[in-house]
Parts: sequence; C-alpha cells; structure tokens
Amino acid sequence: MKKFRAAIIGYGNIGHYVLNAILSSPDFEIAGVVRRDPNNIPNEIKQYLVVKSVTELKDVDVAVLCTPTRSVETYAKECLKAGINTVDSYDIHGGIVNLRKELDTVAKTNNTVAIISAGWDPGTDSMVRSMFEFMAPKGVTYTNFGPGMSMGHTVAVKAIKGVKAALSMTIPLGTGIHRRMVYIELENGYNFNEVAAAIKADDYFAHDETHITQVESVDDLIDMGHGVNMVRKGVSGSTQNQLLDFNMKINNPALTAQVLVASARATMKQKPGAYTMIEIPIIDYIYGKKEDLIKKLV
Amino acid sequence: MKKFRAAIIGYGNIGHYVLNAILSSPDFEIAGVVRRDPNNIPNEIKQYLVVKSVTELKDVDVAVLCTPTRSVETYAKECLKAGINTVDSYDIHGGIVNLRKELDTVAKTNNTVAIISAGWDPGTDSMVRSMFEFMAPKGVTYTNFGPGMSMGHTVAVKAIKGVKAALSMTIPLGTGIHRRMVYIELENGYNFNEVAAAIKADDYFAHDETHITQVESVDDLIDMGHGVNMVRKGVSGSTQNQLLDFNMKINNPALTAQVLVASARATMKQKPGAYTMIEIPIIDYIYGKKEDLIKKLV
Repeated sequence: MKKFRAAIIGYGNIGHYVLNAILSSPDFEIAGVVRRDPNNIPNEIKQYLVVKSVTELKDVDVAVLCTPTRSVETYAKECLKAGINTVDSYDIHGGIVNLRKELDTVAKTNNTVAIISAGWDPGTDSMVRSMFEFMAPKGVTYTNFGPGMSMGHTVAVKAIKGVKAALSMTIPLGTGIHRRMVYIELENGYNFNEVAAAIKADDYFAHDETHITQVESVDDLIDMGHGVNMVRKGVSGSTQNQLLDFNMKINNPALTAQVLVASARATMKQKPGAYTMIEIPIIDYIYGKKEDLIKKLV
Repeated sequence: MKKFRAAIIGYGNIGHYVLNAILSSPDFEIAGVVRRDPNNIPNEIKQYLVVKSVTELKDVDVAVLCTPTRSVETYAKECLKAGINTVDSYDIHGGIVNLRKELDTVAKTNNTVAIISAGWDPGTDSMVRSMFEFMAPKGVTYTNFGPGMSMGHTVAVKAIKGVKAALSMTIPLGTGIHRRMVYIELENGYNFNEVAAAIKADDYFAHDETHITQVESVDDLIDMGHGVNMVRKGVSGSTQNQLLDFNMKINNPALTAQVLVASARATMKQKPGAYTMIEIPIIDYIYGKKEDLIKKLV
C-alpha cells in the first residue's frame, strides 16, 4: 500500500502531537517538517527532513498546518499553490466563511483540497452541533467548554506586548457562557495593568468575563486536559423535549492532532476545493475499506 | 421555492410521525400516502391522496419508507425503479451491507438515490460511532440502549404466531449488554410457554437475556420514550484516556421520522446510488443555505 506523505508545517505543541498521530496511522508517513528555524531540531524529529519551506520536500501529498491560527491562510495558500492538499485547525469562528472562500479559489485553480477548521471546536463539535440541528431542528444548542486550557486564547495572550508566558483557562458557566482565567508572567519593564487591559481588549477576550492574574511560573499551572459539554433540547417534527447531549474529557492537542490527521486522510477523497468538516462524509475521515467500515460502524 | 414532494409509504406509527416531520419542514410537501388498504384513511391524512401504489402519485421526488424493516427492500426497489429516491430506517445491522449493494445497483440504473438505515441506530448513532472512531482510533465504543421500547423488536414479537399484542423493552446493563423485557397478550388457544420459546429463538432475541411476561393489556404499558448512551475510551495518536460520551433521551418514532425526512432532503444532493448515513456530508441533511449553515454551525 502506498502511504500518504504528510508534511508537518510548524513544530510547536500541536506539531509534536501531529507527529504522534501520523506515526500511529497505518496509511501515513512523514515527508518532513517545516520550521522557521530549520536548524532547531528536537530529538524526536532528527530522523526526518527539517526544512524552511514545504517546497524543499519531495512528493508531499498533504500539509498539516500546525502554525498559529492567524498565519494559516498564508501557509495554506503556499502549499495549495505547490500542489499540496492542506488541513488546518483555524479557530476564529467569525473568519471561517472567508477563509473557506479564499482557499477554495486557490485549491480549485491548483487541483488541490483544503479542509479548514479541522480541530475539535471548530471541527468535531461543529459536526455534532450540525447533527443536533437536523435531529431536532427547533431548539437551542449550548456549547460549554472546559475547564481547560484554550490553545487559541493562550496564543492570543502570548502575542500581546509585555507577556512573557501565558495560560488562558476556559471555565464553563453553563448555557454557553464562559469565564476566562488568564495567568501571565510579565516581561521586565511592563506594567501589569496596561498589559491586562490590552488582553481584555483583544477580540478573543472582549466578549467574555476575563480575569487576569500575574504568576511566577505559568509552566507550573499547565495541564493539557480539556472538555466540552454540548447540549440541545429541541423539537423533532412536532414532538417536544428531545434531549441530546455530547460530552468529552480529552487531551486537547492530542485530539486536535488526531482530527487533523483524519482530515488529511479525507482530503485524498474530495474533489478540488476548500471544505469545512461538516461538508465531508464521516466515513472519509476513517482508515479502512468502505464496506468493512459500514459493517463495523453502521 | 419549489418544495420536495415526499410520499409516505406505510402509515403506521412511524408514518404518522413522518407526516408531522414533513409538515414541519419548510422545503417539503406531501405528495401522498401509500397504504395496503387505501380506503382506511385516518382523519389527519384525509386531505392527501391515499393510494395503494406509489406509481399512482404524481411528481414524487422521494419516498419515505415507513414499512416493517423486512419489506424495505421490496418497496425501495419499486420506488427506485419508478424514478423516485428512497429513504428507509432498515434496522437489521447484519443485513445493511447487502441491502446497500442491492439498492445501489437499482438506484444507479434508474438515476435515483437511496439512503438506507436512516434512523437513530442504525443512523445518527452510526454517525457518532464513526466520529468516535477517527477521534480516538484505538479503543472500544459501547452503545447502551434504553430503557425504552424497541420498535424493531416489538414488530418481531408481533410477527410470532399466538402473539396478539406485544411490547419489547430494552434495558441497558452497561458495556453494550442489554436485557429484553417482553410483554405480550396471547391469542386464544395458544400456549404461553411455546410462544415464549418461539420469541427467544427469534434472531432479534437469541443473543440477549430475554424475559417474557404475559399481561392483560400491553397498551397500558407503552411509552415511546427511549434513550442511548454511547461511550468510548480511546487513544488519539499515542495519548491515552480520551473520553467521549454521547447521550440522548428522546421520543423514538419522532426522532426516527425526523432523521428520515432529513435524509430525504440529503437524497436530493447525492449522485445516483445507495448510501448509509456515514457516507453523506452532515450539511446535506440540514435545511438552509450552505454558507449560512457554515457561519451558524461550524
């Protein structure tokens, strides 16, 4: 069996877990790792090609983008133009429609496939939310996150001037309302109140109750566990009180990475274009022969 | 907007709820109802055409099969050959691969689409099970049903000679193990022990702990509520202990009917052939414009 050759673009926290997910997938192999500094090579990737640009790698089928969400568009376009499928876990909900449109054009022009926002929210949660919607079309779905570290929010805090290290915890208050507990180490010469105000003004935090605490060591607080509770009470036909409920308690980057790799697999089965996860048959994400999977799972 | 014209094939319990689900769907209208006895017309369908064969109805886009599971194949083939898409909630897990194969040939020959086993199990549960599989590829998923009335099992009991009325309740014992509590009224002249033995020997019951009780009135026991708890503990990449959990407490025929109608909608967006629910993008089941749905749900 010819394996799909995957490039890992960006080797931070998610990139590391993507490596594990690829190594655990019988239909994938590592084509190489792309880093801004290709001379900085952690031990576990020493056996692979580590380069500065994806174009330096050979026969790449799909690029798994593990960069900060705000650079997804740039890297995705570069890969798609080079004839390489992409998957990303772009997580700014308000920007998804536009990213899909942008990448759709580039993908179609270059005969490639992009699956965007392929994490757990947006991602698999979006799939469950969409299922809830057709199972009980009238009603309200609440998505309750946490308690757990939000990767996107933590990266957003780190991007703010004066922040040396950060952790943003998401605390569920029920009915989709969340508190953000932000822990930071301050760079020398910065004023805590000014930095805290800048964090609260950021789009990631402006709409939620946010508490910011200065600590000696952010690292001592970090645990990668996270959770979600998604709940809908709705109407099927004219029948009220249909109760739907999805829960998970997971290692966050491990699940994101696994979903990215499943989506990388799914890119191989779509027509050129850009897709969100709800636009792709679930079976395409799974390793195995179609009839065997139907027999096992349906 | 041109509405999809749906025929209801069989007007029992599910058929009644399908009527409600169609009437609640802005993109559907009733083309008519097919009954074995077209002169037996309940009040709520008096305003529609009630006929003996789907071929007597005009401009039918999709037939929603609400017949016993064992006659699905016959009715589906008749509709597909008449140029009409079909959806069914065929629920014998071991027969799904074969039904799909049979209907796939007929559908492709007649340029139509069949979505099979479109209820909640098989159906939406299959979709969640499949999601669990790619989110944590190593691990075990347990599907725990009930407590609730099993439609399929109840129909199977009713088919046994000597049974006048029946109710089969599914009781979850955990880790996918179930008890079947069967309540029957006996026809005159039949021996309870012989009928009970015939029930226990039926394929629907042969593999589970089954208790059969004779009662005066089955009707007094019937409640259409049902539930499922689907749980997986698995591995994402090399990360253990990923905990996934799906629960619902629902009116059973109302959810089945709603899933059938959502699937009827999805038939309009597929290439000719037969599909299970995991082979179709989730977005195709939902009413609305693609970009609006992505903005709302992803």
